[in-house]
Amino acid sequence: MSGIREECGVFGIFAPETCDVASSVYYGLFALQHRGQESCGIVVNDDGVFNYHKDNGIVNDVFTPDRLASLGRGNMALGHVRYATTGNTGRKNAQPMVVNHVKGHMALAHNGNLINSYELRSELELQGSIFHSTSDTEVISYIVTKERLRSDSIEQAVNRAMDRLEGAYSLAIMSPSKLIAARDPHGFRPLCYGKRESDGCYIVASESCAIEAVGGRLIREVEPGEVLVFEKNNIFSIRDHCGTAKRNLCVFEYIYFARPDSVIEGASVHEARKKAGEYLWLDSPVDADVVIGVPDSGLDAALGFAYASGIPYGIGFIKNKYIGRTFIAPGQKTREDRVRIKLNAMSATVKGKRVVMVDDSIVRGTTSGPIVKMLRDAGAAEVHVRISSPPFLNPCYYGTDIDSRENLIACRHTVEEIRDIIGADSLAYMRFDRVRALTPQGEAHGLCIGCFSGEYCTRIPEIQAKSKFESKISENKEDE
Amino acid sequence: MSGIREECGVFGIFAPETCDVASSVYYGLFALQHRGQESCGIVVNDDGVFNYHKDNGIVNDVFTPDRLASLGRGNMALGHVRYATTGNTGRKNAQPMVVNHVKGHMALAHNGNLINSYELRSELELQGSIFHSTSDTEVISYIVTKERLRSDSIEQAVNRAMDRLEGAYSLAIMSPSKLIAARDPHGFRPLCYGKRESDGCYIVASESCAIEAVGGRLIREVEPGEVLVFEKNNIFSIRDHCGTAKRNLCVFEYIYFARPDSVIEGASVHEARKKAGEYLWLDSPVDADVVIGVPDSGLDAALGFAYASGIPYGIGFIKNKYIGRTFIAPGQKTREDRVRIKLNAMSATVKGKRVVMVDDSIVRGTTSGPIVKMLRDAGAAEVHVRISSPPFLNPCYYGTDIDSRENLIACRHTVEEIRDIIGADSLAYMRFDRVRALTPQGEAHGLCIGCFSGEYCTRIPEIQAKSKFESKISENKEDE
Amino acid sequence: MSGIREECGVFGIFAPETCDVASSVYYGLFALQHRGQESCGIVVNDDGVFNYHKDNGIVNDVFTPDRLASLGRGNMALGHVRYATTGNTGRKNAQPMVVNHVKGHMALAHNGNLINSYELRSELELQGSIFHSTSDTEVISYIVTKERLRSDSIEQAVNRAMDRLEGAYSLAIMSPSKLIAARDPHGFRPLCYGKRESDGCYIVASESCAIEAVGGRLIREVEPGEVLVFEKNNIFSIRDHCGTAKRNLCVFEYIYFARPDSVIEGASVHEARKKAGEYLWLDSPVDADVVIGVPDSGLDAALGFAYASGIPYGIGFIKNKYIGRTFIAPGQKTREDRVRIKLNAMSATVKGKRVVMVDDSIVRGTTSGPIVKMLRDAGAAEVHVRISSPPFLNPCYYGTDIDSRENLIACRHTVEEIRDIIGADSLAYMRFDRVRALTPQGEAHGLCIGCFSGEYCTRIPEIQAKSKFESKISENKEDE
Amino acid sequence: MSGIREECGVFGIFAPETCDVASSVYYGLFALQHRGQESCGIVVNDDGVFNYHKDNGIVNDVFTPDRLASLGRGNMALGHVRYATTGNTGRKNAQPMVVNHVKGHMALAHNGNLINSYELRSELELQGSIFHSTSDTEVISYIVTKERLRSDSIEQAVNRAMDRLEGAYSLAIMSPSKLIAARDPHGFRPLCYGKRESDGCYIVASESCAIEAVGGRLIREVEPGEVLVFEKNNIFSIRDHCGTAKRNLCVFEYIYFARPDSVIEGASVHEARKKAGEYLWLDSPVDADVVIGVPDSGLDAALGFAYASGIPYGIGFIKNKYIGRTFIAPGQKTREDRVRIKLNAMSATVKGKRVVMVDDSIVRGTTSGPIVKMLRDAGAAEVHVRISSPPFLNPCYYGTDIDSRENLIACRHTVEEIRDIIGADSLAYMRFDRVRALTPQGEAHGLCIGCFSGEYCTRIPEIQAKSKFESKISENKEDE
Repeated sequence: MSGIREECGVFGIFAPETCDVASSVYYGLFALQHRGQESCGIVVNDDGVFNYHKDNGIVNDVFTPDRLASLGRGNMALGHVRYATTGNTGRKNAQPMVVNHVKGHMALAHNGNLINSYELRSELELQGSIFHSTSDTEVISYIVTKERLRSDSIEQAVNRAMDRLEGAYSLAIMSPSKLIAARDPHGFRPLCYGKRESDGCYIVASESCAIEAVGGRLIREVEPGEVLVFEKNNIFSIRDHCGTAKRNLCVFEYIYFARPDSVIEGASVHEARKKAGEYLWLDSPVDADVVIGVPDSGLDAALGFAYASGIPYGIGFIKNKYIGRTFIAPGQKTREDRVRIKLNAMSATVKGKRVVMVDDSIVRGTTSGPIVKMLRDAGAAEVHVRISSPPFLNPCYYGTDIDSRENLIACRHTVEEIRDIIGADSLAYMRFDRVRALTPQGEAHGLCIGCFSGEYCTRIPEIQAKSKFESKISENKEDE
Repeated sequence: MSGIREECGVFGIFAPETCDVASSVYYGLFALQHRGQESCGIVVNDDGVFNYHKDNGIVNDVFTPDRLASLGRGNMALGHVRYATTGNTGRKNAQPMVVNHVKGHMALAHNGNLINSYELRSELELQGSIFHSTSDTEVISYIVTKERLRSDSIEQAVNRAMDRLEGAYSLAIMSPSKLIAARDPHGFRPLCYGKRESDGCYIVASESCAIEAVGGRLIREVEPGEVLVFEKNNIFSIRDHCGTAKRNLCVFEYIYFARPDSVIEGASVHEARKKAGEYLWLDSPVDADVVIGVPDSGLDAALGFAYASGIPYGIGFIKNKYIGRTFIAPGQKTREDRVRIKLNAMSATVKGKRVVMVDDSIVRGTTSGPIVKMLRDAGAAEVHVRISSPPFLNPCYYGTDIDSRENLIACRHTVEEIRDIIGADSLAYMRFDRVRALTPQGEAHGLCIGCFSGEYCTRIPEIQAKSKFESKISENKEDE
Repeated sequence: MSGIREECGVFGIFAPETCDVASSVYYGLFALQHRGQESCGIVVNDDGVFNYHKDNGIVNDVFTPDRLASLGRGNMALGHVRYATTGNTGRKNAQPMVVNHVKGHMALAHNGNLINSYELRSELELQGSIFHSTSDTEVISYIVTKERLRSDSIEQAVNRAMDRLEGAYSLAIMSPSKLIAARDPHGFRPLCYGKRESDGCYIVASESCAIEAVGGRLIREVEPGEVLVFEKNNIFSIRDHCGTAKRNLCVFEYIYFARPDSVIEGASVHEARKKAGEYLWLDSPVDADVVIGVPDSGLDAALGFAYASGIPYGIGFIKNKYIGRTFIAPGQKTREDRVRIKLNAMSATVKGKRVVMVDDSIVRGTTSGPIVKMLRDAGAAEVHVRISSPPFLNPCYYGTDIDSRENLIACRHTVEEIRDIIGADSLAYMRFDRVRALTPQGEAHGLCIGCFSGEYCTRIPEIQAKSKFESKISENKEDE
Repeated sequence: MSGIREECGVFGIFAPETCDVASSVYYGLFALQHRGQESCGIVVNDDGVFNYHKDNGIVNDVFTPDRLASLGRGNMALGHVRYATTGNTGRKNAQPMVVNHVKGHMALAHNGNLINSYELRSELELQGSIFHSTSDTEVISYIVTKERLRSDSIEQAVNRAMDRLEGAYSLAIMSPSKLIAARDPHGFRPLCYGKRESDGCYIVASESCAIEAVGGRLIREVEPGEVLVFEKNNIFSIRDHCGTAKRNLCVFEYIYFARPDSVIEGASVHEARKKAGEYLWLDSPVDADVVIGVPDSGLDAALGFAYASGIPYGIGFIKNKYIGRTFIAPGQKTREDRVRIKLNAMSATVKGKRVVMVDDSIVRGTTSGPIVKMLRDAGAAEVHVRISSPPFLNPCYYGTDIDSRENLIACRHTVEEIRDIIGADSLAYMRFDRVRALTPQGEAHGLCIGCFSGEYCTRIPEIQAKSKFESKISENKEDE
């Protein structure tokens, strides 16, 4: 039930011979839909000819059977789902971005956020460059293109471009003959690759669940700093940037963003969330009759809490499964009404019971109150809220939409005040020092916890590119 | 994961004064969407003037904000979601049906299936009646209209019409000044009513979850045989048909159709399903490490099994929440591929484990195999399947789409053969004699278990109206 | 530029063997589109199985290639374009109407207006009939169905039904094995039939231009009172009602409704309009430099005026050819602005000239003023307006939308006053006694000129069915 | 009935204060729709903030009332209608193009075709530029942007860019505070400006009919080579390029492209076409009974022929006014069928007559035959075809789609052969030496007649940019 919005998902496929790559990207994007519902796109590479379509909307709406069929067959394809973090929403920012440059054409799909995009963009503009969008992806396209002029290959150009790019980026790039995956040296955003044995296709994806969705198996993560190249009969890596920076995977991928069935850097997302529930019990126990999770992202931690505590796990809410991204809420409706449309409390589970309600986070604090009230209306005797992350206190510069302290309830209120605001009998967050212990490799690998700690592994950008360029062009919103 | 399709949902509201009744029906239908995704409609009654819109599609697609607003305000409204059981699909069969007759106009919404609609229709045709649709609802409209000619009131006409109608029907009928709920004497399909205290509106709905979705509270069931009338400043019942037949609520409402947070005839659907899980453990225990449910309808029974057995409950599958009714599956895809698009097995939960997988039913037996295989691919050591209903052996005449024995796997195979077909290590169904014990009132109230037992509380129709009239008109399918 | 709206167009085809009849109906309706742009529909009869689709919108929008293809092949088909005269607009009133009755099913397409539909409908309602629409077509369906019970054939039923129906009706009716055309004894609305030699198909259509549009040739009119039957290897007529009433074809078919390339009752529409222009010159001559017509309906008469007078014919206006039925006029626009969007005056033709501007009629008088002003702004020295019909003074009961005297400018103002209102230098209407001389057969055949004369060949209905039933149901408008 | 496709239309408005500029652009584009039906777009400038929308489709379809309203109010706006000449079709090439550069943002709308776009693009690519589209407009955007870096103002940048651009271009450019119109020194494509006195708005448009459509008056042409700047309280010109090249307006603007009610370089298009008809009579007289034009572009010349010859002018064809750009022709249809859908011959006009049929051009020669046959089927005794332009023998490099000799019937056949192919009794084209005499200023002003003469006023491009870049990216067609 987190109010934080996710960023983007990328998916690429490299086939040993021409086949229906578009369908695979379709299914892969469908499995990554939780990472972005704003817009989506697919580019099919048929022996150097790029066919593409992209538009605002979710995969299932944008890609009708006719549309998908019209993309034709190919030997490579690239796809993207997007929720805008930099660049206002709108069709012009939909990805993958397809551009022409002197050596041919190129498609890029990007997940992350540069911290120096303002500087890079200004520098490019002073050289006479023009920009069609407000997205980082166009900046990256330019940088790669400039390097391409003095490089022997596209992969060299990408590798050199990485010297210029600062911040978070997980990239999938398609040239006429190659598919390239690249990840920033900190490894803020996930990126992995796998193989489908049935036909020998290689797959690059933001999460392993997308590889499985198309019948493939995860091979491994793309390493932070790695440039991984798929070409005809060959796979190879450039590792010049590997190990040049501290690993710093966004911890919120484990807590909320990623799908629970994904495995990131070797750790199961589901297990990490269950672990969070265990810590919540260890650090903030409570006498109760039933443990419930707020669907969908609170369920795993609730199960962990139940296991650790021995308190029975229950189904506390029914979520209306017909709710879509475009769900409209006609009529004059209160916040409570809007919550009730999505969720209904299960009286049979909570009536007369002391309830532990587990959720992943409290961002603005506007939905937790109505949810707690809903449980009380359904007869809960007590409602104890447990949050499977520490309080959000700081903005994120690496690709989520937590961009200021103003809207963060934890910046303005104490835990006790928040408990009072949401009407819970007790409230506890996960202890800050538990975060890095959520995954076996947490300590070793490094996790970015800047949103909790305020400490970042990069400099903090003075000007957010977003604010600068968005003030310049405000596009008509195209997706209602 | 049942392959049985649900029937219909009705929702009506009676307001003490003119207000935005359309929005309430919208939210009510949205909560009943699981009962029918084929078409939907809303009729608003503004002091005797009926405004309506209906079309193929789900509530959220058919009723754009503009559409909904164009229905205007009113003092009553009626809505319907439909999955076709009689009458082929298509816009012409969308409900509520709005007709004019000599005393004014009338809107009807119907859930159920008549067993004498062929006879009634033939009789009407011999009198010169014309039919625009192939639905039972039009037959009911005629019968009510004919009775209206010799009755003093619409409720008397409805009451008299019930002498003619045989089979399953839960009706909501709106005249210019009254809202009427009526239920067949057997009470095959649920129907209940409630009140929203905030503005004094009365609500009629197929399930209590819809009353709660609009902020109301369940008052009670509409009794089998009851005609319940809402008019200005008055509510009253005609009970001439109450107690004239054995109560016979469809047990599949508890097992699969209804939403778990609904309460039907005083019993929680969620509790009934948990009870089914308990019986499965008692009757067919197995040594295992984890119990998982097939989302969404197997989750409650899985929890019951886990409670009773002490085996830990786990999250075994992630269901893609962006899947919609209209999801298309482009490309040449096997059954296995199609299942993988909707579900992914959670390795973290099942790897190396002996797994109990609970599902609500096996109808055709085509999806269970791929699901079991998915668990094995994810590393499950053993897969023990437990089904929270007895085997389907007989057709249903009361409003579900189990209309012949041909497609029922249990009619053609033994349990052991089915176990082999789906590739499970063990397979057990709920014991037949447990069915009536699923709810506290089960024995007393009576439940229709014809699909398991082959014993029906009505005669079996010789000719299914459906087959007759559908052969006559085959409408162009309008809803892809 | 007439503000009178047309009524309906019907088109039927009977093929010697199964073929793509749907496409022919599509093209036929496309040629009849000027007769109704509100809704349209096509029913294909494939050996007794009816496939149909109908919706609000013009033919080209409603029938996408997929939709049309989905209707399949057949041996007969029926189509309709509709502008509502009785029954408010909306999808439920779209035709052809497809109904089931005791002897099978039937599709009806109707052009005209009954004057006794209120009486017939009331009578039917008292027998328990229910009505789904507010259209005359449903009344006709019932009457035919009732007669079918005591008739040996559908054509006998239609023939008997004609004893009950009063007013204007040109019908095309399709039973499982027959296509039937029937026209009221007065012959208010046109109806003709022809044959396509290339494949032996017979065609029934409101106007001959539709027969030509599908490659056929006009054979003859369906006679007033005739029931013309097409069945396998046979065509025959029932003429019981022929000659039972005075012929009374609506003169406005010649003046405005019909396409100029159609031939009605043996007379060319284009020639009739040219003749009107000649009479205008003879009766109201004027010294001028150029004669122009208001597109499109004033062009033929302008040419006639030019021929008769010897004054050069000129192109006075350019009409924007991209204007569609659904053209929206955003922004706060005056009447003048709205006219300017559709028309622009041609300075090259009118600058410094004395101009005769010919138009077909002045109904409300709201557009003529801006058009005259547009000519003056373009430099016309004088503007003399000539109208190719007498003043409208009376309502029409036979299928046009002139339903009251209130909005008719000629009922409230003298010709001189109207001239002043529209700002013309002179204004003249066609002389009343010229109307019946527009076609060679005019005197002999009889023309309905009730709207000019106030004399009608039938009784005047006391209650207009429209007003009664429309007050009962007001459907949400579906076509924006 | 010309098969040559038009190019583009531009429309800009500069208001003295914030108002509903979007509606004016809407109506202006609607009047220019004949210049391009592929895609369209509107950019509104609200004090430096650009709101825009563009998509494939005609103005009336792309700009729904909601869309248009969402563009808001502003003090300037720019619009474009496009038929692709360079750059394949598709949404990515829709104009106006909106880009960001170092000095802010800029919107460009372009009509014409550069002959050095390949060279310019290659040069830019070698500097690291990336291209999102295949259109000339993006090349122009870059050149202007590069010049902007070393210019004090946007108008200086445009003026300098004109040193680099070769070929045909009529541009409207909008910066945050200025509206600029610029036309190449040859003046291939028209561009004019005017004023609306009612509110003081200045208007730039491809044709004067668009200025009139929004209530304005033509002031004058933008001169070949002129850069005309509208800014707050000031209008001024830079004329550095005026008179640097021979005037060379495309003669086909007079013959076919422009709307007859437009005035280009002081000459009425309608008059030019009438003149063409006169020359046809003078040079190729024929004994005949009636002169008819092929709608819409042959009507003016037919009238000129009739005036000059004294042979009566007649209405020979009725064109179906509901035909749209997206009209689909379902079913297996011959060329003859397809023509018959759009046109029907008027028997009343041609039966038994010797007919002169005037059309604007014969390009491929595929439609003239069926049209002649249609006249004969309607009873014409003789059909004499007169074409109001000389034979097409050469490709055009300046913005029309006559890009090769292969499809030009006149390159492969003699006039006599063509007469035989189309089945006419006689055939005559306009004499080549008459072309420059079509307008009073023709000789003086200079007209480009390269398509007839093969002589061009610029060098001929060795490589057509189109073919190069289109082979690189083939976008999925988005507009059926």
